[in-house]
Amino acid sequence: MFLDIQLDHTIVALASGQGGAIANIRISGKKTFDVIGHFFSNNKIQISQGNEIFFGKIIDNKGALIDECLVSCFKSPKSYTGEDSVEIHCHASPYIIAQIIQLCLANGCVHAQPGEFTMRAFLNGKMDLAQAEAVADIIASDNKAAHAIAMNQLRGGFSQDIVQLREGIMRLAALLELELDFGEEDVEFANRQELSSLLKSSINKISQLIASFKLGNVIKDGIPIAIIGEPNVGKSTLLNVFLGEERAIVSEIAGTTRDTIEDTVVWDGYKIRFIDTAGLRKTEDVIEKMGIDRALDSIKKAQIILHIFDKKEGFAEMHSMLLTHSEADSLILKVHNKSDLIEQLEVQPDIHISAKNKTGIEALKARIIDHIKSQIKPFNTLVVNSRHIQELSSTKQALEKALDCLEHEDTHDFIAAELRFALHHLGSLTGQIQTDDLLDIIFRDFCIGK
Amino acid sequence: MFLDIQLDHTIVALASGQGGAIANIRISGKKTFDVIGHFFSNNKIQISQGNEIFFGKIIDNKGALIDECLVSCFKSPKSYTGEDSVEIHCHASPYIIAQIIQLCLANGCVHAQPGEFTMRAFLNGKMDLAQAEAVADIIASDNKAAHAIAMNQLRGGFSQDIVQLREGIMRLAALLELELDFGEEDVEFANRQELSSLLKSSINKISQLIASFKLGNVIKDGIPIAIIGEPNVGKSTLLNVFLGEERAIVSEIAGTTRDTIEDTVVWDGYKIRFIDTAGLRKTEDVIEKMGIDRALDSIKKAQIILHIFDKKEGFAEMHSMLLTHSEADSLILKVHNKSDLIEQLEVQPDIHISAKNKTGIEALKARIIDHIKSQIKPFNTLVVNSRHIQELSSTKQALEKALDCLEHEDTHDFIAAELRFALHHLGSLTGQIQTDDLLDIIFRDFCIGK
Repeated sequence: MFLDIQLDHTIVALASGQGGAIANIRISGKKTFDVIGHFFSNNKIQISQGNEIFFGKIIDNKGALIDECLVSCFKSPKSYTGEDSVEIHCHASPYIIAQIIQLCLANGCVHAQPGEFTMRAFLNGKMDLAQAEAVADIIASDNKAAHAIAMNQLRGGFSQDIVQLREGIMRLAALLELELDFGEEDVEFANRQELSSLLKSSINKISQLIASFKLGNVIKDGIPIAIIGEPNVGKSTLLNVFLGEERAIVSEIAGTTRDTIEDTVVWDGYKIRFIDTAGLRKTEDVIEKMGIDRALDSIKKAQIILHIFDKKEGFAEMHSMLLTHSEADSLILKVHNKSDLIEQLEVQPDIHISAKNKTGIEALKARIIDHIKSQIKPFNTLVVNSRHIQELSSTKQALEKALDCLEHEDTHDFIAAELRFALHHLGSLTGQIQTDDLLDIIFRDFCIGK
Repeated sequence: MFLDIQLDHTIVALASGQGGAIANIRISGKKTFDVIGHFFSNNKIQISQGNEIFFGKIIDNKGALIDECLVSCFKSPKSYTGEDSVEIHCHASPYIIAQIIQLCLANGCVHAQPGEFTMRAFLNGKMDLAQAEAVADIIASDNKAAHAIAMNQLRGGFSQDIVQLREGIMRLAALLELELDFGEEDVEFANRQELSSLLKSSINKISQLIASFKLGNVIKDGIPIAIIGEPNVGKSTLLNVFLGEERAIVSEIAGTTRDTIEDTVVWDGYKIRFIDTAGLRKTEDVIEKMGIDRALDSIKKAQIILHIFDKKEGFAEMHSMLLTHSEADSLILKVHNKSDLIEQLEVQPDIHISAKNKTGIEALKARIIDHIKSQIKPFNTLVVNSRHIQELSSTKQALEKALDCLEHEDTHDFIAAELRFALHHLGSLTGQIQTDDLLDIIFRDFCIGK
């Protein structure tokens, strides 16, 4: 797709969403002011120095008035794309939007591809590739934690990690290449010990970034919590308490609809996703019928499992089943429900609650949030993009091979080759290395207009 | 509701739609620059003369970076509302939008009521009431004809008609009031003949505006066409030809979705709505079973009825049924389908087509469009707002009473009272006369942010 893209083209797209009162149509490229000059009545825009707003009429080629609107004007390089650019703020009528876009196309624009404005910003040096990728995450972010990760990436937090890694490896590579040039003379510029230790620390750093991926994605998409227990221990009551409390809070925030957050809440800025354990809830003989794939899948997916129980009987079997089928790094909390009614347990719970009387709920939430925070704490940067993980894994592999060569005292050119591989993969993270295919993959999931 | 509105308040609302890449949050009111100063990093906005754009960071009260974005700045009176105003163009993330609105509320804004920006524009003298009402129609317009009506109203076309009517009646009223003042002296300033003729021409003008209402609404909502005929005459085939052709065109226009235009097409800028005649399509003995309310309702609602037939038999009964149950001003076209197969008819059709072979379709469409255009031609202004029709009807009633008084040589004070009534109703059309209740009714159907 992006093989077709020509920066010579002037592009147009609707950048705002469906509905609303005001729409935003974006134009960017060399012919921007020529295009707008054909149908916008206020000619002062042609002599603007940029960052100005002009009021005027949009008039079609038959002289019909399409709209009266404001046009924001940006002059290269002081624009999002780095190119000459305008934003037409028209009434959000489907007819008006379609007419204005048609006018742009008729006067020399082409439709923007998904993400093309941001891709141009990258190609014109306004941001690196990892920052450009963060733009899509920023737009998609619906909770504080996901927003913070994306914003850190947009502001260059992740890129900085990569640049530092890359600089270290480049220095090594340069020394090795120098030795290769002087190969005949058996000169040794690079200290083996230092080389080995730098490779190891780079591998560690990358391993940490890779390790952050699972957590990063969990935070971005919502931390999956499963509520598990035998029938009638109060699982549904507890879920309703969790959702019910949130409902009141959520309804105060403009722009959120209940439909899209079904069984999802935001606690302390973290999105919590209660995963479907319907298969577990309805069965009579839990352990026996638990074999069904769906139920096991829920347990496997859960980052946190709330094991609800109200008596000693059956507790041990259920708990060992949970331990067997859950992921090693997931937290299983023993939650004693109906703690107001039943005293004798012989099981040491992590927490006592009464879902019905809403006691112990805040403590349970605090326990969950503390766990999430403790999970995040070791990481400076959370990687959330699967492309980044691929490149980081390839980098790590190359560095491990280089280390292996070094330890086996292989010839320098093997090590140098692996370092070049590593640099290539790191470079493609921030865009120092780029191909049309890569750009295609990155920007195709963007929305049009961004 | 609007009794609560205080122009002292500074209001905030999301003005753009759901989704997209860029959102638009609008602030308007005296404290606009104080509010934005609390969380927008670029202080140059504070000394702006208006119509400028500033890039900066949105930072919350805990120092967290919410977004980097552009803020458009407008200084009173050069803004949409006439007040100090800004538009924040942020990333269209649900989280970011909610955070920025929360920041505005925390720093002295209140949520805008639906239509409050436009209502403020009216109250601050930026537009009259009829123009303000046109804004909602402009936003809702999804076809050329509806857009043209709304745009004419926004640009003051309708208001001008009303102002002219009002001026004529005011002059008369003034003369009559003068006579009342000089009542004892039996002076006669107003020429009876002239008064009567002016009243008549005003009544005519208003009658024409009222008459335009049905057509105006039909154009705004889509011109209803019913396709009627006995089973197997090709009604569905014809509908599919109509819809199928349009489908290809519609899919090229950005922002339109098939869901919302089910059985609706736009021909030559006019929205055509094929109304549900399912009740007619499925029955075997059409005439007999046609008694069901729904089917009759479809015929009654249709502005244009396409009577499809392929043979002589049953034609006359069906046609007379259509004549009986359709509105007097609707057009019934005798459409002879399968005209390639059957030659002998003994019925004179209006048009020959073959839905299957797609012959005669363009001619049929042209015939329909010609009819619509001929209907619109007599009207300079089309009234589309039911409030306007109420006020115009009340005005007409008062003027007719005044004329009646005049013809029966009643005393002047009766006539003057009726003219004052008429002026009141005309004045409330454009907002010379206004009450909180009236503003409430007008703006409550606006979207928030407009």
